[in-house]
Amino acid sequence: MNPPFDADRLLALMEEAEVELLLASTRHNVRYLTGGYYYPLYMWDAHGRRTQYLSFLAVPRGGLGDSFFVGRPGEREVMQEAEVWPGQCYESDGIGSLYTAARTVELLEQKDLDAVRIAVELPSLPADVFTVLRDRLPHAQFVDAVPMMDGLRAVKRPDEIRRIREGAEKNQEALAAVLTSGRAGATTVEIRDRVAREFGRRGLHFLYALVCAGPNFFRAPSEKRTWRPDHPLHIDAGGMLDGYIAELCRMGFLGKPSGLADRLLQGCRDLEEAVLDTLRPGVEAGTVQRTADAFLAGYPLGEYGKFIAHGIGLVHHEDPVVDEHSRDPLQEGMVLSIEMEFRHTDVGHVKIEEMVVITRDGSELLAAGGGDWFLSMP
Amino acid sequence: MNPPFDADRLLALMEEAEVELLLASTRHNVRYLTGGYYYPLYMWDAHGRRTQYLSFLAVPRGGLGDSFFVGRPGEREVMQEAEVWPGQCYESDGIGSLYTAARTVELLEQKDLDAVRIAVELPSLPADVFTVLRDRLPHAQFVDAVPMMDGLRAVKRPDEIRRIREGAEKNQEALAAVLTSGRAGATTVEIRDRVAREFGRRGLHFLYALVCAGPNFFRAPSEKRTWRPDHPLHIDAGGMLDGYIAELCRMGFLGKPSGLADRLLQGCRDLEEAVLDTLRPGVEAGTVQRTADAFLAGYPLGEYGKFIAHGIGLVHHEDPVVDEHSRDPLQEGMVLSIEMEFRHTDVGHVKIEEMVVITRDGSELLAAGGGDWFLSMP
Repeated sequence: MNPPFDADRLLALMEEAEVELLLASTRHNVRYLTGGYYYPLYMWDAHGRRTQYLSFLAVPRGGLGDSFFVGRPGEREVMQEAEVWPGQCYESDGIGSLYTAARTVELLEQKDLDAVRIAVELPSLPADVFTVLRDRLPHAQFVDAVPMMDGLRAVKRPDEIRRIREGAEKNQEALAAVLTSGRAGATTVEIRDRVAREFGRRGLHFLYALVCAGPNFFRAPSEKRTWRPDHPLHIDAGGMLDGYIAELCRMGFLGKPSGLADRLLQGCRDLEEAVLDTLRPGVEAGTVQRTADAFLAGYPLGEYGKFIAHGIGLVHHEDPVVDEHSRDPLQEGMVLSIEMEFRHTDVGHVKIEEMVVITRDGSELLAAGGGDWFLSMP
Repeated sequence: MNPPFDADRLLALMEEAEVELLLASTRHNVRYLTGGYYYPLYMWDAHGRRTQYLSFLAVPRGGLGDSFFVGRPGEREVMQEAEVWPGQCYESDGIGSLYTAARTVELLEQKDLDAVRIAVELPSLPADVFTVLRDRLPHAQFVDAVPMMDGLRAVKRPDEIRRIREGAEKNQEALAAVLTSGRAGATTVEIRDRVAREFGRRGLHFLYALVCAGPNFFRAPSEKRTWRPDHPLHIDAGGMLDGYIAELCRMGFLGKPSGLADRLLQGCRDLEEAVLDTLRPGVEAGTVQRTADAFLAGYPLGEYGKFIAHGIGLVHHEDPVVDEHSRDPLQEGMVLSIEMEFRHTDVGHVKIEEMVVITRDGSELLAAGGGDWFLSMP
């Protein structure tokens, strides 16, 4: 069976990093590399007794076909059910990350992979597991696997884009439902909870909702902050569909927007248009940021504006990196989150965030039609 | 302002472990110790660019009032909004766990806490962060903070029990809705997704649903497994309310249960009754397991039966530990998950899981009335 990812790309990334073995451990990367495996407790990590869930997918550069999985007792059967491509699935002797680590060490020794350069996910590998790997594999070298995994995942397959699009559409429907039925005096915690319910009804797994009631800029949901008549409110919310994150920001207004509020929202749209003009394969990611910054420098309300963009997929902020220095070229299939915002003390925090996929000759919004006010009557 | 937890108990646990400083880092433990702080991205960890979210709450044994928080830029304001008790809130210079680690190291040096015995959460502290702490604090010693945090959280406050009870009730309502509207041929993935929606509608954050269609024992949701007429189905599902986990298992049947199926479910109830008889303050946790094992040894279908129990709260499996050797006494306010199950190849996996709180003179089910079949017509 063939791996579901771009195997040549992974091997090239491993070669560039002079890595002999990739040892992926995060739920999202193990899932990505196996292609079909979705651990039932994917959504929460803190469920072990004085430990946490951990599995490893080991990919040797010398032979992709020798890749193997090490999980907890019972997982071999689950992997087989999912018909994943790695033929070798091992189980630890007990439940907990140190059991998985111990079994993995034994296997690396048996397979003569115990004295090579190994890429592990340093920003998320548990400290106790890393200690075991270092102590028991004294001749191995360890480097960070995240740059190569981010590089591998940056261009999405059509089935991934489909899922992200579906998530973005559900997100937009949910935010529209909440923002068009606003009521004066609702706290931002209540609004966050409504977003969670509207996500849940649509089968979109709730991750978070930042809710900002103008004219303040404070975005964490709070029992003390309310949506008041004649003020805007933004909801910047993320949900997950089948592991993929969909994140949007939409604007509501309780009543009739003031002229200044309208101009700030128009600023988001004008900024978006300037950015969208740059998005196509081959353009350097840095160009996107520099275009946005130059646009704001010449815009009437530009001093209140800001632009941020980032890749998004299984991880909230992933490749491609978009900042003024980035020389990475955009490629067909990359998915970006683009965030256009103006903060003005007379109005509040006006923000539109869109998800965009790079197409063969340009780009496409994944949830179009959300750039205007969603109005509620006070 | 006073800490919201049992400060004397924490200091005693720290003294027992000879720890001078507790450095909590998991979202659940930072939340527990601050009492009111709920990080907006609580539900998902993989959102940083080649890093993850990390904050520290530092509690020095020598002076609880000198406890301090270190978070990412913008978090000071969020902590102040939540009116948490630690007066000192610091922010890192950038977003990402290594920034938080660097800032924390500086603060520990300034406060003369850089050469003491420090408890960190080893099973979840990121490997890269631990490496920084060890390299930059060469005179500190590090031990695992999890046993003391688990010990601190084992007895729940009334407000915690209220939340867990509310979560359990919502969970039961949702499972009843799914199990009484079953249809022949639904895959266990479809049933899992229905549980997620029913949770979402009720404001219960979906964590997982294991779905087991008899007569097989396979519990991971699968596109290939369906609920068939004249067979039982169990849903073992966990949801989260305000950070607290509620987990139940309920039984459905498509049609009329056979005599053997009925006897197996009656076995769960009889086993539960035997267990509930033991639950009260002062009883050793080991007694609970031994009573269940002895009951099964003398029960007609006992060879198919099994009993598991564990503490539950902010973490899925936490203190108290319930196994045959445990000498820890049960205490008023502890919350247990008790799992009664019989696996028989002619029927399937018949399982009831309940949540129980230890009361002053006994115990109480948090979501009563779920021990019978939830029936659907085929």
